[in-house]
Amino acid sequence: MISNNNSSCSQQTKFNLVQVKGTWIRQSDQFQLAEGKLSDAKIYENKSEHGVSWTVVSPVVFTYRVIQCKNILDPTNDTLLWGHLGEEELKHTLSNCKPPKRFVVIDENVNKLYGSQVSQYFKARGVVYKILPLPTTEENKCMELVTKILEEVHEFGIDRRSEPIVAIGGGVCLDVVGLAASLYRRRTPYIRVPTTLLSYIDASVGAKTGVNFAGGKNKLGSYVPPVAAFLDCSFFQTLPPRQISNGMAEMLKMTLMKHRGLFELMETEGRKLLHTKLQVCKTRPEQEDSATAIIRIAIETMLEELAPNLWEDDLDRLVDFGHLISPELEMRILPALLHGEAVNIDMSFMVYVAVQKGLLTVDEKNRIIQCMLSLELPVWHQDCTLELVQKSLKERLKHSAGSLRMPLPTGLGTAEIFHGMIGDGILCQAHKKWTDELSSSGDK
Amino acid sequence: MISNNNSSCSQQTKFNLVQVKGTWIRQSDQFQLAEGKLSDAKIYENKSEHGVSWTVVSPVVFTYRVIQCKNILDPTNDTLLWGHLGEEELKHTLSNCKPPKRFVVIDENVNKLYGSQVSQYFKARGVVYKILPLPTTEENKCMELVTKILEEVHEFGIDRRSEPIVAIGGGVCLDVVGLAASLYRRRTPYIRVPTTLLSYIDASVGAKTGVNFAGGKNKLGSYVPPVAAFLDCSFFQTLPPRQISNGMAEMLKMTLMKHRGLFELMETEGRKLLHTKLQVCKTRPEQEDSATAIIRIAIETMLEELAPNLWEDDLDRLVDFGHLISPELEMRILPALLHGEAVNIDMSFMVYVAVQKGLLTVDEKNRIIQCMLSLELPVWHQDCTLELVQKSLKERLKHSAGSLRMPLPTGLGTAEIFHGMIGDGILCQAHKKWTDELSSSGDK
Repeated sequence: MISNNNSSCSQQTKFNLVQVKGTWIRQSDQFQLAEGKLSDAKIYENKSEHGVSWTVVSPVVFTYRVIQCKNILDPTNDTLLWGHLGEEELKHTLSNCKPPKRFVVIDENVNKLYGSQVSQYFKARGVVYKILPLPTTEENKCMELVTKILEEVHEFGIDRRSEPIVAIGGGVCLDVVGLAASLYRRRTPYIRVPTTLLSYIDASVGAKTGVNFAGGKNKLGSYVPPVAAFLDCSFFQTLPPRQISNGMAEMLKMTLMKHRGLFELMETEGRKLLHTKLQVCKTRPEQEDSATAIIRIAIETMLEELAPNLWEDDLDRLVDFGHLISPELEMRILPALLHGEAVNIDMSFMVYVAVQKGLLTVDEKNRIIQCMLSLELPVWHQDCTLELVQKSLKERLKHSAGSLRMPLPTGLGTAEIFHGMIGDGILCQAHKKWTDELSSSGDK
Repeated sequence: MISNNNSSCSQQTKFNLVQVKGTWIRQSDQFQLAEGKLSDAKIYENKSEHGVSWTVVSPVVFTYRVIQCKNILDPTNDTLLWGHLGEEELKHTLSNCKPPKRFVVIDENVNKLYGSQVSQYFKARGVVYKILPLPTTEENKCMELVTKILEEVHEFGIDRRSEPIVAIGGGVCLDVVGLAASLYRRRTPYIRVPTTLLSYIDASVGAKTGVNFAGGKNKLGSYVPPVAAFLDCSFFQTLPPRQISNGMAEMLKMTLMKHRGLFELMETEGRKLLHTKLQVCKTRPEQEDSATAIIRIAIETMLEELAPNLWEDDLDRLVDFGHLISPELEMRILPALLHGEAVNIDMSFMVYVAVQKGLLTVDEKNRIIQCMLSLELPVWHQDCTLELVQKSLKERLKHSAGSLRMPLPTGLGTAEIFHGMIGDGILCQAHKKWTDELSSSGDK
């Protein structure tokens, strides 16, 4: 028996879908009878002697806003309450006379610093609100935390269409709340308010949500973007410097992959920005300062790579740079190493691989390592052994449909994705040189 | 302070995304420099004195197959193992020398009837497999069952890209496995093999997954379609007649909303098909028999309505007919009432509302009720009180952005969606007439 879908004598018809007075009607290209709204979805029908089969091709459009703003907790600022809406939607919502409701999940440390301001904001705006502080650490990033949120949301009661859940915190908080919201009534809108540099640059602008499961990082999750991410740098003022460096690693990733200008800015200004915690001190308000520029370009480059591949259907991803060896390394030495630090060690090693493959010059390599050191990021780690590298790459090979898909820099701010396995010779030599040159700097 | 997104002096730029040598580059319409693959995603940038904001518009394309087939558990039939793949993908997969792996979740009652055949199929095909039988009843439809599946899948180990999880059972089984698969590694492909008529017509062809939560039906879930649904009528042979009637209620829903021909087929042939359990007895193989036709049209009409609205962004849905009062009714008198039975009671009442509103003639109403009775479906229930009706419609109003969006028949096989609340007078009169005429038939 030949399987239905591969039957050679089957006959395929393509159908468009047209909506007439609320009813969807399928129409082949040959017979276009009714006029109405045309869907982007298509149905392909195959008839053969074995029966009928249909292939449904249905595009779903995800729309979300990423908004940079200042003083988000100032009650005179509309953003936190209404920034997710367009002008028309806002008018429609404001015409509704009942007070808005907001359910807010906040990291418990962030709550100590900003909780009362958040309360005051919603109180001043006449919002019916509930604030749930949670210990959103990597160790607690699991399904139980999602369930806890869901129970509280359900008890509080929100309108699934118009009352987004608000997450205020670092990457773990944003990921966990995102998953809870994407599950509740199959999708409830949510808003991300990152309070760390890392989550500002990374977690807030994409669609990924997740929790750890069975010892694996982000093994459960979804690809549902927030309705909006509100980015306010002023939260960085209360971060320890190590957390700023941590975020700068993810920025550096984007510079190395695709933006020479951003690299040069980080090279010359990075250290100063680290110590001023990226706070803007405007002497000339008509000109963009380096803190604003560096953050803007980091977001732009991330969005460029994420928007065309929101559900990661394309396995070739430049944003995976620094993320081939680091997950294994990170899970082994948690909590000693922060995410961005593990990513930086991975990138530092990969820079040596790129040199060994003749993609980068020694001078370029030196500039990159020097930049990493100036940002106070670790560039080497004793647990990042050659065995760990080889094991990680083999794992990668297994989970990316038989191709390594390894992004490597091919200059300062340019990159390519390499598909074949890297030879053991190159890996071994790169690892030896990496250790010889950097092990003394990697004791931090 | 004016919120950033509503600033009147902001300036908007639309960017397309072009991929050049693996790197995505944004380009405005004015400056198209690089040539490369163009994405359907767009980024809109707004600059104002308050900062920058971006709106990301990203279409994600979902593709899935719905395949009618016979003898799906016959080891000579490729469908169960390879039916989800196209010709090219299949060639590529077969060129891989390692044996395929399949994780199968099967309802425990279905397992008693078909479990050994499923084992024999995979054994005969040289597949490394694991079969997990579970009690997939409405009462057990909860997150714990999802977690159980995830733990077992993780222990067994599958390739997230190429080894779909297979669900064999009724609607609950398909919904629960769908949710587990959509969570595992943010999306693992899964296959639906419905064994009841209801799930064949309804759950298998759409994208919805779900579990009950906090006393609410399908309160948690996702919109992730299977890679394929394999539809084999021969499973119906082992169903009790009540389960066939149960499925026919969902078929009847589609006929009343949009297919007069299908209604007439159910009117004349429905009872016979109920008693032959929709099994095909081909005397003239060149002609489509009524069982095949009725099922084919039911699937086609469902796909027409689901494909353009996979994530239910459009709240106006004809497929909601019969689903406005029934969830409340169903949760109250579970497990005495099956899903399709509750849907039918809802539809029967709505037919009276349609008559009261002057949309249907009395003759049309009589034909519909007569057809329901011939399919051995309940047309009235004492617990479906006027209070329950009013409460359900108020709930509906609350959760559909302030509009009732009530589908009602406007003839045999035509329908419209009504937005305003139905007046208490009409509801009351319809309910009285409904009770007067049908209460004696509703004691079953």
